[in-house]
Amino acid sequence: MKATIERATLLRCLSHVQSVVERRNTIPILSNVLIEAEGDSSLKVMATDLDLQVVEHMDASVEDAGSITVSAHLLFDIARKLPEGSQVSLETAENRMAVKAGRSRFSLPTLPRDDFPVIVEGDLPTSFELPAKTLAELIDRTRFAISTEETRYYLNGIFFHVSDEDQPVLKAAATDGHRLARFTIARPEGADGMPDVIVPRKAVAELRKLLEESMDGNVQIDLSASKVRFTLGGEGGVVLTSKLIDGTFPDYSRVIPTGNDKLLKLDPKSFFAGVDRVATIATEKTRAVKMGLDKDKITLTVTSPDNGVASEEVPAEYSSDGFEIGFNAGYLKDILSQIDSDVVEIHLADAGAPTLIRKDENAPALYVLMPMRV
Amino acid sequence: MKATIERATLLRCLSHVQSVVERRNTIPILSNVLIEAEGDSSLKVMATDLDLQVVEHMDASVEDAGSITVSAHLLFDIARKLPEGSQVSLETAENRMAVKAGRSRFSLPTLPRDDFPVIVEGDLPTSFELPAKTLAELIDRTRFAISTEETRYYLNGIFFHVSDEDQPVLKAAATDGHRLARFTIARPEGADGMPDVIVPRKAVAELRKLLEESMDGNVQIDLSASKVRFTLGGEGGVVLTSKLIDGTFPDYSRVIPTGNDKLLKLDPKSFFAGVDRVATIATEKTRAVKMGLDKDKITLTVTSPDNGVASEEVPAEYSSDGFEIGFNAGYLKDILSQIDSDVVEIHLADAGAPTLIRKDENAPALYVLMPMRV
Repeated sequence: MKATIERATLLRCLSHVQSVVERRNTIPILSNVLIEAEGDSSLKVMATDLDLQVVEHMDASVEDAGSITVSAHLLFDIARKLPEGSQVSLETAENRMAVKAGRSRFSLPTLPRDDFPVIVEGDLPTSFELPAKTLAELIDRTRFAISTEETRYYLNGIFFHVSDEDQPVLKAAATDGHRLARFTIARPEGADGMPDVIVPRKAVAELRKLLEESMDGNVQIDLSASKVRFTLGGEGGVVLTSKLIDGTFPDYSRVIPTGNDKLLKLDPKSFFAGVDRVATIATEKTRAVKMGLDKDKITLTVTSPDNGVASEEVPAEYSSDGFEIGFNAGYLKDILSQIDSDVVEIHLADAGAPTLIRKDENAPALYVLMPMRV
Repeated sequence: MKATIERATLLRCLSHVQSVVERRNTIPILSNVLIEAEGDSSLKVMATDLDLQVVEHMDASVEDAGSITVSAHLLFDIARKLPEGSQVSLETAENRMAVKAGRSRFSLPTLPRDDFPVIVEGDLPTSFELPAKTLAELIDRTRFAISTEETRYYLNGIFFHVSDEDQPVLKAAATDGHRLARFTIARPEGADGMPDVIVPRKAVAELRKLLEESMDGNVQIDLSASKVRFTLGGEGGVVLTSKLIDGTFPDYSRVIPTGNDKLLKLDPKSFFAGVDRVATIATEKTRAVKMGLDKDKITLTVTSPDNGVASEEVPAEYSSDGFEIGFNAGYLKDILSQIDSDVVEIHLADAGAPTLIRKDENAPALYVLMPMRV
């Protein structure tokens, strides 16, 4: 293989793929990125961790076809440090890849292309498109609730499923057992009959990074019950393929309360700031913030054996019976920071019952938070 | 004690003192900051780690005099989160300090003022002033070479001493045995007869942060053989007092080569970039960069058993005999990044001898770097 490529193109492309590659690998080739010179004007670059792969094409001037694998992080670090505007020549010879730019020469160890593992996609019968912006919002509104408990592997991702309600919808949900986030959109054409799928946390994170750079277009989504493929930026763009989590997402609809009869309305920003302030004195052991509800105001209190007491009143709209309820301050802040509005609706039942939080009844996002004993 | 203070004033003052306070303390009161209402228009704030103390006065409206100690990091975190522009009331009652601002109320645990340790300065017979800018540059050019080896405690700071050469000078030096940095200025009035002192790393770091905010004025320095006091911003400013390192700094002048007869001149920025690029493939085990000197060019090479070979030519001015010498890439970069010029002078003898690096013979800063075997 012999090709020349602009440093900026190489750097952008490697920045997309290199974060897929884990820093430590027991299988050496998983540290590498595959570079393949196909036609005479583009290189294919591919990285994988066996569960997730990203493929991108980049413009290049190809002299000799061929392919090779080299350390992803090393090549990325080199590309970062090469002078801006330089032309980078990549050439393979005797189990090495020579990288040349300006007065710099690198000779990097390689591993054979044939050893590079590729995820077999198989048939991906369900195909639909989503605007990149919609997909990004869907991720942003739900990913914070993804569980990090590895034993509950079936919660380590975002659950996508379609359903027929007043109209056909596509729902995305994530939960860790303490809080739940759900985002609902109209079912895109082609998504009917879609199998339920759980997209793993790392694929979600990588996808979100890629979306950041192509917010204007659509994303093509193709999936089966075991694999999903996201194609960004159309032909010659970036393709992310991921295995899906092989498990059953719990029937989360049962924890979404429907009969909560106490409605509290307040400004999510003041509420967030108040929770954040009183939580200053919370410690690892005492993360609960107590919320006392009275007519048209709430009082936030945190009591810590080490750090004393903090309290703050927040004006609110509330006319049901007064009572007290406790929440994990961090979880409450996570949810409040998602509400992009001057008013948030908090639907409560009692101090022990799941609480529903949303912008309003038409909002695509809905959150459920379990209370804590205080 | 009862006083009211602007949140911005409280926050700025706490940000100055709180970094002196260690996050973990076996002696509880060392986690606290002392707040003392003296006259009717200012509060004294003081923090210490027993070796280093910072005292600052801040404008306040004092209703009742008195003093108290509360957790430094806690009060700082609270001040950070209070609304911008708010007035903060501080009031002590029943072993607690109440903090009130807007709708927020905090009741913080306290410890008695009398238990708060104060460094006894004793006599500080040597007194002189330095422009804040000069002191900041002196620190910047030398501190990177301070040793972190705790067993060589006498190298864990910047060494200050006066001497009479062509003219009276004040010199600051730091070394870790591998590299040495020295900065020389004309001896300020009042510094004659100054004892040799070693200012500890942490005091240097805190002082440098404080200087950042008062670059325009002078700093008053008072010292004895065991203590040093830096007064910034004149009356009502910030006072940093530190114990000095009780040890003997080695006679570093002996390692500054005087007979190095091979002079290499080059652009420190291209040299830095070249070293940085070839060092990409260096690993923990192989941090050495080999520098091959030839007529008017140098060739940088790094060889790594894991990552291959990297090389780069850098244009230079050199007319002595060609030879090869190795340096720790990180140390070389540290020094090169200090050279604020288009040309750096590198005075070499042979592959085993200390190398002298400086901007030119008139530069206040001078660096010595030990070579590595390559």
